[in-house]
Amino acid sequence: MAEVRRVGMLTGGGDAPGLNGVIRAVTMKCAGEYGYDVAGIRLGWKGLLDPKEGDIFPLKVDDVRYILQEGGTILGSSRTNPYKREGDAEKVVRNMEQNGIDALVAIGGDDTLGVARRLHDEFGIRVVGCPKTIDNDLSATDTTFGYDTAVSIATEAIDRIRTTAKSHERIIVVEIMGRHAGWITWGAGMAGAANVTLIPEVEPDLDAVADLFKKRAERGEPWGIVAVSEGVTIGEEYITQTAERDEFGHVRLGGIGETLAGELKERTGIDTRHVVLGHLQRGGTPTAYDRILSTRYGLRAAEAVRDGEWGKMVALRGNDIVLVSLAEATEETKTVPRELYDDLATFFG
Amino acid sequence: MAEVRRVGMLTGGGDAPGLNGVIRAVTMKCAGEYGYDVAGIRLGWKGLLDPKEGDIFPLKVDDVRYILQEGGTILGSSRTNPYKREGDAEKVVRNMEQNGIDALVAIGGDDTLGVARRLHDEFGIRVVGCPKTIDNDLSATDTTFGYDTAVSIATEAIDRIRTTAKSHERIIVVEIMGRHAGWITWGAGMAGAANVTLIPEVEPDLDAVADLFKKRAERGEPWGIVAVSEGVTIGEEYITQTAERDEFGHVRLGGIGETLAGELKERTGIDTRHVVLGHLQRGGTPTAYDRILSTRYGLRAAEAVRDGEWGKMVALRGNDIVLVSLAEATEETKTVPRELYDDLATFFG
Amino acid sequence: MAEVRRVGMLTGGGDAPGLNGVIRAVTMKCAGEYGYDVAGIRLGWKGLLDPKEGDIFPLKVDDVRYILQEGGTILGSSRTNPYKREGDAEKVVRNMEQNGIDALVAIGGDDTLGVARRLHDEFGIRVVGCPKTIDNDLSATDTTFGYDTAVSIATEAIDRIRTTAKSHERIIVVEIMGRHAGWITWGAGMAGAANVTLIPEVEPDLDAVADLFKKRAERGEPWGIVAVSEGVTIGEEYITQTAERDEFGHVRLGGIGETLAGELKERTGIDTRHVVLGHLQRGGTPTAYDRILSTRYGLRAAEAVRDGEWGKMVALRGNDIVLVSLAEATEETKTVPRELYDDLATFFG
Amino acid sequence: MAEVRRVGMLTGGGDAPGLNGVIRAVTMKCAGEYGYDVAGIRLGWKGLLDPKEGDIFPLKVDDVRYILQEGGTILGSSRTNPYKREGDAEKVVRNMEQNGIDALVAIGGDDTLGVARRLHDEFGIRVVGCPKTIDNDLSATDTTFGYDTAVSIATEAIDRIRTTAKSHERIIVVEIMGRHAGWITWGAGMAGAANVTLIPEVEPDLDAVADLFKKRAERGEPWGIVAVSEGVTIGEEYITQTAERDEFGHVRLGGIGETLAGELKERTGIDTRHVVLGHLQRGGTPTAYDRILSTRYGLRAAEAVRDGEWGKMVALRGNDIVLVSLAEATEETKTVPRELYDDLATFFG
Repeated sequence: MAEVRRVGMLTGGGDAPGLNGVIRAVTMKCAGEYGYDVAGIRLGWKGLLDPKEGDIFPLKVDDVRYILQEGGTILGSSRTNPYKREGDAEKVVRNMEQNGIDALVAIGGDDTLGVARRLHDEFGIRVVGCPKTIDNDLSATDTTFGYDTAVSIATEAIDRIRTTAKSHERIIVVEIMGRHAGWITWGAGMAGAANVTLIPEVEPDLDAVADLFKKRAERGEPWGIVAVSEGVTIGEEYITQTAERDEFGHVRLGGIGETLAGELKERTGIDTRHVVLGHLQRGGTPTAYDRILSTRYGLRAAEAVRDGEWGKMVALRGNDIVLVSLAEATEETKTVPRELYDDLATFFG
Repeated sequence: MAEVRRVGMLTGGGDAPGLNGVIRAVTMKCAGEYGYDVAGIRLGWKGLLDPKEGDIFPLKVDDVRYILQEGGTILGSSRTNPYKREGDAEKVVRNMEQNGIDALVAIGGDDTLGVARRLHDEFGIRVVGCPKTIDNDLSATDTTFGYDTAVSIATEAIDRIRTTAKSHERIIVVEIMGRHAGWITWGAGMAGAANVTLIPEVEPDLDAVADLFKKRAERGEPWGIVAVSEGVTIGEEYITQTAERDEFGHVRLGGIGETLAGELKERTGIDTRHVVLGHLQRGGTPTAYDRILSTRYGLRAAEAVRDGEWGKMVALRGNDIVLVSLAEATEETKTVPRELYDDLATFFG
Repeated sequence: MAEVRRVGMLTGGGDAPGLNGVIRAVTMKCAGEYGYDVAGIRLGWKGLLDPKEGDIFPLKVDDVRYILQEGGTILGSSRTNPYKREGDAEKVVRNMEQNGIDALVAIGGDDTLGVARRLHDEFGIRVVGCPKTIDNDLSATDTTFGYDTAVSIATEAIDRIRTTAKSHERIIVVEIMGRHAGWITWGAGMAGAANVTLIPEVEPDLDAVADLFKKRAERGEPWGIVAVSEGVTIGEEYITQTAERDEFGHVRLGGIGETLAGELKERTGIDTRHVVLGHLQRGGTPTAYDRILSTRYGLRAAEAVRDGEWGKMVALRGNDIVLVSLAEATEETKTVPRELYDDLATFFG
Repeated sequence: MAEVRRVGMLTGGGDAPGLNGVIRAVTMKCAGEYGYDVAGIRLGWKGLLDPKEGDIFPLKVDDVRYILQEGGTILGSSRTNPYKREGDAEKVVRNMEQNGIDALVAIGGDDTLGVARRLHDEFGIRVVGCPKTIDNDLSATDTTFGYDTAVSIATEAIDRIRTTAKSHERIIVVEIMGRHAGWITWGAGMAGAANVTLIPEVEPDLDAVADLFKKRAERGEPWGIVAVSEGVTIGEEYITQTAERDEFGHVRLGGIGETLAGELKERTGIDTRHVVLGHLQRGGTPTAYDRILSTRYGLRAAEAVRDGEWGKMVALRGNDIVLVSLAEATEETKTVPRELYDDLATFFG
């Protein structure tokens, strides 16, 4: 196989604080130390599938020196997946060739890494992966970058909201990211000392939650915080609230935060509100933890390129950054194990 | 008139960062220096209208020494208004007498201070007011405490969200507090460098806003931030979006953030999202600015009690804390003047 | 006089959070709205006295759009003063002419604005000034930008340090910026709830300070925080400590923080440490308050250029940005008035 | 052996953000769930060696519910070591008996845990240890709580200082905690993107550092940040600076930050300053990471008490909290391995 000269790099899927840390480390090591050309590819697979002018461009050390503190990704991102339409994968491969890109660092989640793996397996594309998800739900690595920042932001939100809840004697439900895995909510619920934390992995018992707040009220604290993942669902049979029925008798259900607030108000008689953190959780400057983790990922990914460790992905194990196969990496979703959730129960109430 | 021996203090209406700063300063000066008894009254006028056990309690210097950093109010708050039901004002007066409270420091907004003023005018109650609203819409004072904290939180939110908007090439609409006055949005829009800021005082021109984002897209920046007050309204004739119509053809309009996001997406073709900051904006530790302002308010209010300046309210004028009449204080809502709004226009785009 | 075509802009003296806010607003208004050429001048008067290649360069709207959040100054700064050496002022004037700069926005403190004033008075240079000092010691304006950020940083430092002081039962002396004026220390001492605050304007009474901490110890709190301006001095006759004498018997006195810590330890028997905040206080992203103030200063300075208001400086009065004469502006240092310092006394102990 | 009824808990050594997290979790699990009496012991071993009134007191769930966010330790701390004076260990054992304390949770560093281990080995005291050091230098655990907070604070400091360094074209040396192990400096140097990082584990080459800054100046960036551990030493033969010699010709060397700043100024001709972060790094509210880690440590320590796992210590391994023997725990100092330090080199310059 021909020697690697030009290394492409792209970021796919939702942005995560730390992406620029990976980009910086890969560029400084690959271009600055190893002497490769590095090509930035804009907007994930989109920039390889249908590159517009400027979508594939040289990345120099001077371009990345000061980007570690920045949230988001200087490469831009998209959810384009070349395996969704026949012929697109071939187009990606052709565009790589035409642009002289003979190796690829793909930074992304399940979807992006799944594409990377198939391009490697099916076309022999020389690819190194770097896992990215603020959801922390990849089984192949102890932690993903962006997760610590998301937990920190949600924790700070709970800290802020608590004083209002207490002053107004209210329950406030904080809706936190996490469709399938409750990691961010678990972390923020523990760090923010929520009075109850609900995650998609464990079916919620609304009556138990309501009882807990009634007990708090009895001991003189008619207020509290519920941390809930957006992915938590409540069986329709538990929905009792009437307040939000429209003229046709339809219950207008918003997100789980809103629904849950209505239910708790109904059941406890305590004024209950909700906040949806939404996009606040994924942006802004990364925590020190995420800057370090993303930088270390990037360095290791660059070494993997140098060593020709194709089809591999970087991962954290204890204090070490290791390589695992992309196959292994994209196999399984890591959800919050029951015993970790039960740890929270000590603090409920 | 009998000498003042026992000074009551209450906080009414929505909580604001800095309330504990006022409470601390009043207590330390009135109890610590002047030798008055200070009585904390729980839950605003509710604690005087229908006091439960413990709702009127001695506040000592040791109780307040370390509360300056805390958001919310250690006295609790409510929206109870004794002028909403016949006979309630008399009950308040009677309860003050029975509890030996012969002067009152009332900390609150329009509503709370309006009650204070009528109790003073109609019953001769010895009252000193302290303005509180994070909305900053009181004409009698240059600034209200809580406002700086609210602007800071909203600004930080915009800072965070910008990197996501840019990475994903999205418009993100940030809905900020302010039903009638756009001060917080004006401040956060300026400090957060929003690409457009919309406030209740100025009718929005959706087409102009959409054009601006189209121009941004043309020059290579198909993304941006809109800061919008919750109180902004859009004439129904401008609503074009179809996405959220339900089975009966009804447009389900959420808050202005959601509506606006839908409209901008429709008009620009750019993916547009929204975030509602909600309760995040009023809680948590106050900024240094609000700690100082609230402390100075509290000190001046205590002096007003000592000097018998009843029916007055503390206010900031330039660098000075002055006294103004409660009548003046509650007269007029201060909205954002047109020329201040126009200052923002320089940065639109 | 010929029409203004090209407006130069420079920043002089110590950096302050908010400088980029002024630069951005001046550029966006002057270049973007009024159609002037704007020339950035590097390193304060140095860039006009002895311009190297690239020291005078075109500033475009696109260069400044996203700099509001950045601390420091994109123009760089220096303490060069062209009135310190004969002939230098003439050189500055000549370089302005040669570079076609026919008006100047000078952003700086006493020193920078003093030069601006003399260039205006002596050579008829068309200059508009913008006050900059984190020390807040200019009498012509209610507040200077950078001050709020400095107070915030020092306050956060005190918040952090308090938990250590308490856990270890120590006094910790926090040395804060301010050679001649104690504004930052006054603000941080109030907002951080320091147990004692010492500023250059008021002679410290070490015995009284020591007594206060002894009393705290007696009531069960053998710890506390002293906020002290770097410019506070202690008469040599009060120096009693022996710990730090060197082999020759010389007392090695560090800054006031270190000295004071030694003295308090000696007098109280309580373990006493110190921290010098130093450069931490002037850097980093500006607070929302400083972003707004600096932006409004910049807008008003741009208007002054348009209106030919030469020899004037922007200033804050209440909520308004006004113009004052540069003469007035640089006349007097504003120190902390005694009554504001006495406000703190309520919280000492 | 008699059943455990009353569990004592103490914190020793320097404070670390997260101590209250451990205290809260141990108390809520031991008292709230298992039904033990929990006794708080004030000021580390001091409170057991020579308990004053109130130094051994009941800790209830209600005392700890809301302390997770607080820095420091509600138990207070000291450096008292009962193995420093003959007979003291026996006194500790006697005081435990007299106060009915039949098991002990000892939270501390090398010193505190070393005592715990000997009390266990020599007197059969039932003890469970919890490691605490912001220095992160314990080989038995992947990470210690407090470390993440310390790195975060130092990183934020570097972020702030960078803008000043750049605006003034200065080198600024940031002196960071770490006498023997460079972990905090390593982390903050990486997360803060310092231009050079120096740690005690690797002998510094001043000439190489100076060359690096000269090269930066040549490419137009005559400024930068050095992160240096307080424990770094420079051989006297490398000291060239003359600026700070006193009248007797003695070089007055301050800490390494000051010394290094002098040397770099001398060697590069670039204005160089320094900042000593000192006590700022260990106080204040813990990061979300440290709140979670300390809470999980506390829960596991409580389980160890219930299970009678005496002589053990909790530790983090990957994502798991495990038990290791106290012997193992206090055996070895974990310093920064050479390859982790070399990771930083990619970013030097």
